[in-house]
Amino acid sequence: MVLNKRITIQTACFFYMLFFSIAVFAQQPADFVNPFIGTSNYGAAFPGPIAPRGMASISPFNVAGSQNKLEKDSQWLSNPYVKENTFLTGFSQVNLSGVGCPELGVILLMPTTGAVEINHLTYGSTYSNEVAKAAYYSVNIDKYNVKAEFTASKRAGVSKFTFPKGKSNVLLNLGLGLTNEEGAMVKVVSPSEIEGMRSVGSFCYNSPEAAYPVYFVAKFSKPADQFGVWKKPSKYEGTEAQWMTYNGKARMMENTTKMVVGDSIGTYFSYQFDKEETVEVKIGVSYVSIENARENLEKETGNKSFEAVYKETYDEWNTELSKILVEGGSTEGKTIFYTALYHTLIHPNTLNDYNGEYPEIKRGKVGTTKNTRYTVFSLWDTYRNLHQLMALAYPQQQSDMVKSMLEMYDENGWLPKWELNATETFTMVGDPASIVIADTYLKGIRDFDVQKAYGAMLKGADQVENNPLRPGLKEYIEKGYLSTNHRGPVSTTQEYNASDYSIALLAKALGKKEDEKRFKNRSLSYRKLFDKNLKLLRPRTADGKWYEPFDPVAGANFEENIGFIEGNAWQYAFMVPHDIRGLIQLMGGEKAFSSQLQKVFDSKQFDMANEPDIAYPYLFNYIKGDEWKSQEMVQKLVRNYFQNQPKGLPGNDDTGTMSAWLVYSMMGIYPIAPGDPVYTITTPMFDKITIQLDSKYYKNKSIVIEREKNTDGKIKTIELDGKKLPGYFISHDDFVNGKTLKVIQN
Amino acid sequence: MVLNKRITIQTACFFYMLFFSIAVFAQQPADFVNPFIGTSNYGAAFPGPIAPRGMASISPFNVAGSQNKLEKDSQWLSNPYVKENTFLTGFSQVNLSGVGCPELGVILLMPTTGAVEINHLTYGSTYSNEVAKAAYYSVNIDKYNVKAEFTASKRAGVSKFTFPKGKSNVLLNLGLGLTNEEGAMVKVVSPSEIEGMRSVGSFCYNSPEAAYPVYFVAKFSKPADQFGVWKKPSKYEGTEAQWMTYNGKARMMENTTKMVVGDSIGTYFSYQFDKEETVEVKIGVSYVSIENARENLEKETGNKSFEAVYKETYDEWNTELSKILVEGGSTEGKTIFYTALYHTLIHPNTLNDYNGEYPEIKRGKVGTTKNTRYTVFSLWDTYRNLHQLMALAYPQQQSDMVKSMLEMYDENGWLPKWELNATETFTMVGDPASIVIADTYLKGIRDFDVQKAYGAMLKGADQVENNPLRPGLKEYIEKGYLSTNHRGPVSTTQEYNASDYSIALLAKALGKKEDEKRFKNRSLSYRKLFDKNLKLLRPRTADGKWYEPFDPVAGANFEENIGFIEGNAWQYAFMVPHDIRGLIQLMGGEKAFSSQLQKVFDSKQFDMANEPDIAYPYLFNYIKGDEWKSQEMVQKLVRNYFQNQPKGLPGNDDTGTMSAWLVYSMMGIYPIAPGDPVYTITTPMFDKITIQLDSKYYKNKSIVIEREKNTDGKIKTIELDGKKLPGYFISHDDFVNGKTLKVIQN
Repeated sequence: MVLNKRITIQTACFFYMLFFSIAVFAQQPADFVNPFIGTSNYGAAFPGPIAPRGMASISPFNVAGSQNKLEKDSQWLSNPYVKENTFLTGFSQVNLSGVGCPELGVILLMPTTGAVEINHLTYGSTYSNEVAKAAYYSVNIDKYNVKAEFTASKRAGVSKFTFPKGKSNVLLNLGLGLTNEEGAMVKVVSPSEIEGMRSVGSFCYNSPEAAYPVYFVAKFSKPADQFGVWKKPSKYEGTEAQWMTYNGKARMMENTTKMVVGDSIGTYFSYQFDKEETVEVKIGVSYVSIENARENLEKETGNKSFEAVYKETYDEWNTELSKILVEGGSTEGKTIFYTALYHTLIHPNTLNDYNGEYPEIKRGKVGTTKNTRYTVFSLWDTYRNLHQLMALAYPQQQSDMVKSMLEMYDENGWLPKWELNATETFTMVGDPASIVIADTYLKGIRDFDVQKAYGAMLKGADQVENNPLRPGLKEYIEKGYLSTNHRGPVSTTQEYNASDYSIALLAKALGKKEDEKRFKNRSLSYRKLFDKNLKLLRPRTADGKWYEPFDPVAGANFEENIGFIEGNAWQYAFMVPHDIRGLIQLMGGEKAFSSQLQKVFDSKQFDMANEPDIAYPYLFNYIKGDEWKSQEMVQKLVRNYFQNQPKGLPGNDDTGTMSAWLVYSMMGIYPIAPGDPVYTITTPMFDKITIQLDSKYYKNKSIVIEREKNTDGKIKTIELDGKKLPGYFISHDDFVNGKTLKVIQN
Repeated sequence: MVLNKRITIQTACFFYMLFFSIAVFAQQPADFVNPFIGTSNYGAAFPGPIAPRGMASISPFNVAGSQNKLEKDSQWLSNPYVKENTFLTGFSQVNLSGVGCPELGVILLMPTTGAVEINHLTYGSTYSNEVAKAAYYSVNIDKYNVKAEFTASKRAGVSKFTFPKGKSNVLLNLGLGLTNEEGAMVKVVSPSEIEGMRSVGSFCYNSPEAAYPVYFVAKFSKPADQFGVWKKPSKYEGTEAQWMTYNGKARMMENTTKMVVGDSIGTYFSYQFDKEETVEVKIGVSYVSIENARENLEKETGNKSFEAVYKETYDEWNTELSKILVEGGSTEGKTIFYTALYHTLIHPNTLNDYNGEYPEIKRGKVGTTKNTRYTVFSLWDTYRNLHQLMALAYPQQQSDMVKSMLEMYDENGWLPKWELNATETFTMVGDPASIVIADTYLKGIRDFDVQKAYGAMLKGADQVENNPLRPGLKEYIEKGYLSTNHRGPVSTTQEYNASDYSIALLAKALGKKEDEKRFKNRSLSYRKLFDKNLKLLRPRTADGKWYEPFDPVAGANFEENIGFIEGNAWQYAFMVPHDIRGLIQLMGGEKAFSSQLQKVFDSKQFDMANEPDIAYPYLFNYIKGDEWKSQEMVQKLVRNYFQNQPKGLPGNDDTGTMSAWLVYSMMGIYPIAPGDPVYTITTPMFDKITIQLDSKYYKNKSIVIEREKNTDGKIKTIELDGKKLPGYFISHDDFVNGKTLKVIQN
């Protein structure tokens, strides 16, 4: 039931529909999605339409041009859209959400009027009346008085431009983009079709040799009256430049249907309208071929109207988001909850085409999958909570994600680390795939080849030479830690420990006792970096001495730090989720631990915007009597950092990791120890939460979380199906096999 | 019979074949071809293999790198190869022959050994042991001790590299090229196949918006052990540059099979050989599509060996060149004759693919032809003699050339002026297509739509506004000449006059008396530019006054000149081939005319290297008693300017125009008045010349030209089939309907 949201599209029956729908229909989960959340404060979300785990998406592109507050070329900027900016230069057709590095944000569509102008700084415009919701975005482009509306299917973006009378143009700019990779090819197939490719890559300014193409086919609802390709070549110098009157100048190749390549090229389709007219542009994309992009376009959007595509994608969003139904709580709360859940359903996203083909990782070969092949595995982030959320509410997707990771192992010999569109960016540290796979298996999602997975995990954990996943592994195995000869040695040791612990857990489940013991032991080696005086983890040099000078505070806010990655000693002090009880002992008991943990928050060392410490608010649950501190802290953090506004994310969403934290936190449970199928519990922020369970993986149809007093009050006891829990933890099995988890408040 | 030329290839049976063949077989016409002629002195020929009127050709590329005497970026250079140069950077797969502007000379194949090096200034090498003959070129590449051999079919080049033991590479450089157009796409399809395109265009640094793609598919006889694509991106500046450690650096994309685009890209195919090994690379090209390039390759070279392709193309050359058999004369004479004839059979060349598809002119659409669609119409040059030679000895080709011109009219609305691979470069002045068409029709080659042709000619001659062929036409019609408001007004007036005369001739043949009269009148309007005092043509200003200051000598050697195009008043003084008798009157009679004509030569104003005056040596034939001067002058010019050596052309071959001059001159006849089917006669340079006549167009099987005394001696009388001619002229009809034209010497 989407009627009450479709009113902005179907303006003709605006009033009738408005009253009718408000009177009859309740708001659906998808109606609570506010895509503007995370479009400021470096959240790096984009407000345009995307289908659940879509390959294609459309974002307004407003980060070029110095009139913008945040300009893409003047600083490190990872997103195609910033809410505070004001100057729009197009609508990019492939985008990443919530990442920390520039990539994609290319194939820019832009409606203009009057003479064709190809310089984005000239044809760009201010804009107004932005509307963003699940599967829909619209805006008025001030300079041209054009209304632009957008929706998307999984592999195609659909744009609809309403032009005033007169000369109108649709530009497709293949030069401008967020990625620093350049180069494109384009061919006008007919006055209503364009095909081409854009080279993208160099995520985080890494691995330029892994640049790769995104192919596209664009179909226009009306054939152009005139069309052409522009090309701005590089500039010659020296003698030749004297003869080239066109040196360095953009050229307009009118009417050409030949293939054109270059770093700065684009097409223009022009119309002469004698009244207000709309033009729809459907753009299918593919990472395999132009043919596949065309098939994606045809199969998904074929002869469908803009409205039909929108309705299908809206319905899909509603279906997905309805897997978790929340009742009670404020509209504001539901908005941030469902928007967060929406954000967790963007990445990992679909890589395979409609026909199942996809580019194999690092090999350039074309594979074929019968499942969904997923991509964009920001595993250093997502191993902590996002995959756990998928395993619970979207187990089929999580299963396909594991299968995708195993396909990568087959193709490339290694599990992924930070995979992006079939390239391995090797961004961040650690070996997080093992944690995700163990976690998935131990939650009962087992329809993948676990023996292969286990072999892959062992390879990453044991192959000392030429191991791209675990640099420094030899020293780690020999000494139990990485010395300062390696990058972020303390953080990396902690990450390896966490992975080793997951391997131990899976080894146990598979009856491999030797491995279990060996990896359990390895997982505790962080203890050698524990400085008893500071009660913090601290880097050691290669000869085993503490690294000097040591400032436990240095390294916050992404400063470089000799021991840590994106954090300091305080932010990493408790990041041993698999051995909190061991850490309690190291720190001198529960009281000392709780006091040290509190110090993280009191001294403002806690960083909500980055992953290492995001589970810390829940760690008070390990200290009997201090659990209220977790409840209080989680509520405070949600209040302070998550709001229904563009800056309503604490920072980079990290492909949904921050959002997954919010979803879990608002449900009152949190996967406290990645790999270990256990949740810790805090006060839910809705009266009733119903998680639909997939019958393929779970015996019950759903599990309900309830709070007794329908407030945010402190917890007295917790009951599962009427039986009191001994503490603030519940295993995944107990949870999904129960009917109701009731939080009874004071 | 190619045995005596094949010995350098089939080295195994070298000695046996050598003696066998010399003993048994005489040299065939193709054996006299020396492709090095015209590779110095700006002849702009290339020494590598090409089939008759081939689309593909291979040229050693030695014009990059400052160690070369003539470097492509340091001066205006129109050819991929210069004999004096020494530094080779590859072998280009599409090339123009004998043109005056840089274009094509791209898709550079280069064998190297050792580590892959992608900078041509580093991987380039000196070379030795060049061998060039019809359909074959070979060279040793000094730096790598690699023997490189080349041959070509009509649409594919075939390269054969003999590598020493060790690591070997075949580079395909898509960045480097003679054209200033940039941009390429490449995709490694498999370890033995590459497909892609290179953007070319901007002939004479004109019309950059008409840049167009040449597509290619390369197949290797051995799959590469390693392969990859390199890409050298442009350099970022500013803030971003700090983050891009790879900024501006070439990157090696190992093993990639994805599409790569960029201005400076290429592929490397590497081998590890444990003994001497050969690799053959076949490269099919197309101006339509990659698919067509692949089909061209398959259909023409399929499973054929290098030797088989060579033999086929050699045989084809021999068949073509045998259309004119010469006997007597020196080997040197036969060499320059058959090499010249070879040069006339390169352009216009084939544009259509094996399946008949070709790019339509200026429209980017794909057309299909059942004939041959020709391209590279340098008509300002070739209207003077090359097409006349084709009409005589290769009438089917000339017919297809006219049909190609009419197709262009259908496609584009205009006859071609200087057409190049389906672009109209508008190089040079005049409206020469009309002359070629009239000349062809009047010679009895009439299997084309003459009514359409006539209509096309009238459109070019009469449409006053928006006429791309005849700028300034309004003034020309009103005043009879172009004033100095227009470029090269005197030259252009002369060109328009010549075209108008041809239209008059065709009008007469078609019974269009009014038109005949009108255009005959128009064709004489150059007379208004005749300055009686100077006895020269001279520019007038828009108000009708003589342009001042006027220096009749200025403008030689391609200096700018207000009145003339690529020449001065002396060089244009007699360029009214249709009205020499009128000019004689203007100049004050035969004696004055002859004296003035002699002055052109005596004052060294005659330029053998450019077209306007190349018929002048024959003009003494118009003066009774002075005909010996033509005989003497022609012989002297041949001696001085045409030799069996690289500098053996007077300058740019102008797509065979200089060579056609030589062919006619050595046969002792010359098409003195383009459009008018008449030859003037001088002493033949062979004892006997047999021109095979195509039975489709001519009733006799052949026509023979003989000289009585088998010397270069002066002519006493001329007989056709025993009947004395009244003068030194013979109509085309009389000539081809005769059996023997005998020149009887003193």
